[in-house]
Amino acid sequence: MVLNYPGGKRFKVKEDHERIHRFHPNYGNRGMTLEEDLNATNEYYREHGIAVIHKKPTPIQIVRVDYPKRSAAVIKEAYFKQTSTTDYNGVYRGKYIDFEAKETQSTTSFPLKNFHEHQIQHMKQVIEHGGICFVILRFSSLDEVYLLDASHLLIFWERQQSGGRKSMTKQEIERYGHYISLGYQPRIDYIKVVESIYF
Amino acid sequence: MVLNYPGGKRFKVKEDHERIHRFHPNYGNRGMTLEEDLNATNEYYREHGIAVIHKKPTPIQIVRVDYPKRSAAVIKEAYFKQTSTTDYNGVYRGKYIDFEAKETQSTTSFPLKNFHEHQIQHMKQVIEHGGICFVILRFSSLDEVYLLDASHLLIFWERQQSGGRKSMTKQEIERYGHYISLGYQPRIDYIKVVESIYF
Repeated sequence: MVLNYPGGKRFKVKEDHERIHRFHPNYGNRGMTLEEDLNATNEYYREHGIAVIHKKPTPIQIVRVDYPKRSAAVIKEAYFKQTSTTDYNGVYRGKYIDFEAKETQSTTSFPLKNFHEHQIQHMKQVIEHGGICFVILRFSSLDEVYLLDASHLLIFWERQQSGGRKSMTKQEIERYGHYISLGYQPRIDYIKVVESIYF
Repeated sequence: MVLNYPGGKRFKVKEDHERIHRFHPNYGNRGMTLEEDLNATNEYYREHGIAVIHKKPTPIQIVRVDYPKRSAAVIKEAYFKQTSTTDYNGVYRGKYIDFEAKETQSTTSFPLKNFHEHQIQHMKQVIEHGGICFVILRFSSLDEVYLLDASHLLIFWERQQSGGRKSMTKQEIERYGHYISLGYQPRIDYIKVVESIYF
């Protein structure tokens, strides 16, 4: 399946935020995507020997590659593919860690359209195999981040499939999820929550 | 770092092997790459509820994307990036599994240039965090496959860095590694070996 990247959003050129921060040094955390914050957090975890967790590369279907003489291969035609798994995985204290991270502009609920069927099936499999599986949800306008165990997401997903609401309410996330306090280093200290609820 | 894909090899269009098999239905396993065999094996493991292990997508540095009206986004310029981790990871019986897979045409030794410094550092980290980490090595001309725990690879790597030989001998791999018997389904049953040596 070929699609705009990801979930219909446009691909962001990486340097955008660097440019923002160069010209607005006091811009702070605003404008950083959840992905950037989690990449920085994971880097912090690796550098400090806390956990080894990486974001998986974006899957690409390559159609045409040129091999110019004396320089690097250039991909000339390729398409974004839908991921069949979640975006982040790795190891913490020997256990398998697996999660997806999404953000919403809504202040009252989290739309389930942020996830797709393949990811839900993957989460089910990870749970069945004893892995630690969750989602990190950011309410961007409120700058609030929650960790929700995948088992709860699966229940909300089933509710939707039975004709129920197409989102989780913020109250539900507050009740079944865990608030992650935000900091400077690491920015989103989700391992502290993982440690407290899974170990 | 931008490079030809991977380790100087050219990118293979996926359909090649499908075409070979369509015209040569008795072609059997010959000509299948190690990656194809492992992907089929991992699919078998997932479908049979044995383990959840995926190959990570090839990391790509995207430079230019076109958004034609009414059709999918097209990547018009991109480059292969070097991976900072191993290619395969996932979960088996709750434990984190992480490995790299490589093949050689040599019948007597396995060149260490098949691995790069980033991957070696990643393997070290995984071991430190209690993950199960190994390499799957295929001697293609002999159709022999071995699983070698990463701790042994690290010793051979250090030997090289101290001015020692630039490869592991086949005898060393036979001694410190574990032979994986090849089959039809799954093709490379490495989890059987993982079960016997790590659990």
